[in-house]
Amino acid sequence: MKSIVLFGAGNVATHLFKAFSLAKNFEVVQVYNHKEPALDYFRKAVKTTTDLSQIVPADIYLLAVKDEAIPGLAKKLFPTNALIAHTSGGTSIDVFRNFSRAGVFYPLQTFSKTREVDFKNIPVCIEANNEADLKLLEEMAGEISGNIFNVSSEQRRSLHVAAVFVSNFVNYLYTEGEEICRQNNLPFDILQPLILETAEKITRLNPKEAQTGPAIRRDQSVIESHLQLLNPEQQKIYQVLTQSIQNLHGKKL
Amino acid sequence: MKSIVLFGAGNVATHLFKAFSLAKNFEVVQVYNHKEPALDYFRKAVKTTTDLSQIVPADIYLLAVKDEAIPGLAKKLFPTNALIAHTSGGTSIDVFRNFSRAGVFYPLQTFSKTREVDFKNIPVCIEANNEADLKLLEEMAGEISGNIFNVSSEQRRSLHVAAVFVSNFVNYLYTEGEEICRQNNLPFDILQPLILETAEKITRLNPKEAQTGPAIRRDQSVIESHLQLLNPEQQKIYQVLTQSIQNLHGKKL
Repeated sequence: MKSIVLFGAGNVATHLFKAFSLAKNFEVVQVYNHKEPALDYFRKAVKTTTDLSQIVPADIYLLAVKDEAIPGLAKKLFPTNALIAHTSGGTSIDVFRNFSRAGVFYPLQTFSKTREVDFKNIPVCIEANNEADLKLLEEMAGEISGNIFNVSSEQRRSLHVAAVFVSNFVNYLYTEGEEICRQNNLPFDILQPLILETAEKITRLNPKEAQTGPAIRRDQSVIESHLQLLNPEQQKIYQVLTQSIQNLHGKKL
Repeated sequence: MKSIVLFGAGNVATHLFKAFSLAKNFEVVQVYNHKEPALDYFRKAVKTTTDLSQIVPADIYLLAVKDEAIPGLAKKLFPTNALIAHTSGGTSIDVFRNFSRAGVFYPLQTFSKTREVDFKNIPVCIEANNEADLKLLEEMAGEISGNIFNVSSEQRRSLHVAAVFVSNFVNYLYTEGEEICRQNNLPFDILQPLILETAEKITRLNPKEAQTGPAIRRDQSVIESHLQLLNPEQQKIYQVLTQSIQNLHGKKL
């Protein structure tokens, strides 16, 4: 049995803790957080601490904390015999450059406190500064997911940007859609089958091929009638995205 | 049994034809298209024509043609005893202002030739210029979908804009995500669980509450490192959407 000390008590830490509670060969033996209240959830199941001097020895120190907290925490944990790894999409493995054993364990998903996730399909992107630890992280990822990728820090940085486009920005467009429904006394439910189909479609079709709508059709009269219905901020988004769609698909027309 | 003449042979017409082939009380008795080749698919199952003088009498004339083709087709079909209806999100019922019986039958979904759709969950937005025909369209929609909404032309125009945001523009952001993966030798598959979860999440959570990412966190160092990885067009999209997220969520911070 390999032992993990988990640092952090936010969404990622909580979902990872739940997932590892079902693992066969890895066990979370302690959870650290800098503040006490967030540890309430963990206390009934595992040892917890807010005191870095009380951290127990373990095979892996897994830092599921905010990006900006990683360097400071690393400094305080140095030196250690454990493999130190973080869960951040946007942080290079170089943040651990002083450590002989360092890695990254990045689950590529959007986590909310109130929503359960099934780790089985979540891609886990791993990286390590030596072969043995890459293998260790691969075993660890294999306990919770069937979807493991070796991803370098440079690739992961780009992947994180891509995730912002397909998740954070997409969710913002859903927010605009909901707002337009609300202003016109329409239930947001009416858009949900379209939202789901648009997402499911690209598991079969390349998104470039799946593009539809007035922008790609260059239907200027529809575009203009849409702009009239929007506020200045929505107009800006509409124009920038319409222009980009037309630039990308320009050669075809 | 109520009879339908279907005008058009594109994606919407084809999917509607398939759906009505299973209906109990409505039957497509003829398919018209202005060009011959697109009728090939229909010819084995139903009468087809490219000649408007050969249109048979029917209970409903359903125009599933391009928006810009609706006015011209309406002019040529005038006058008629049939209920004339179109399937367009962006066209007012007023396009049929000369007709005593007029309606709209708008299925709110993204249709691709190569992808089957299950109409049962697709919202069908109906409108008519008299009560009896609204009831007729309701029965007709009920044959293929369990999800029927009375939507005025004004509401439908806004709904169409909302659909552009949550489907056409979202698909474009998927295209950018795919491009970023391709440039970094990462399989696009790696983003698909995130894409699906982002879409499914908002069937439970309000999208405004579901917002995550560097923009809402105002994580300026991540935002700047992302911008460095993008081309000028991607930068513009990134900046406009980041700014909008921060404007919407400004009060909370």
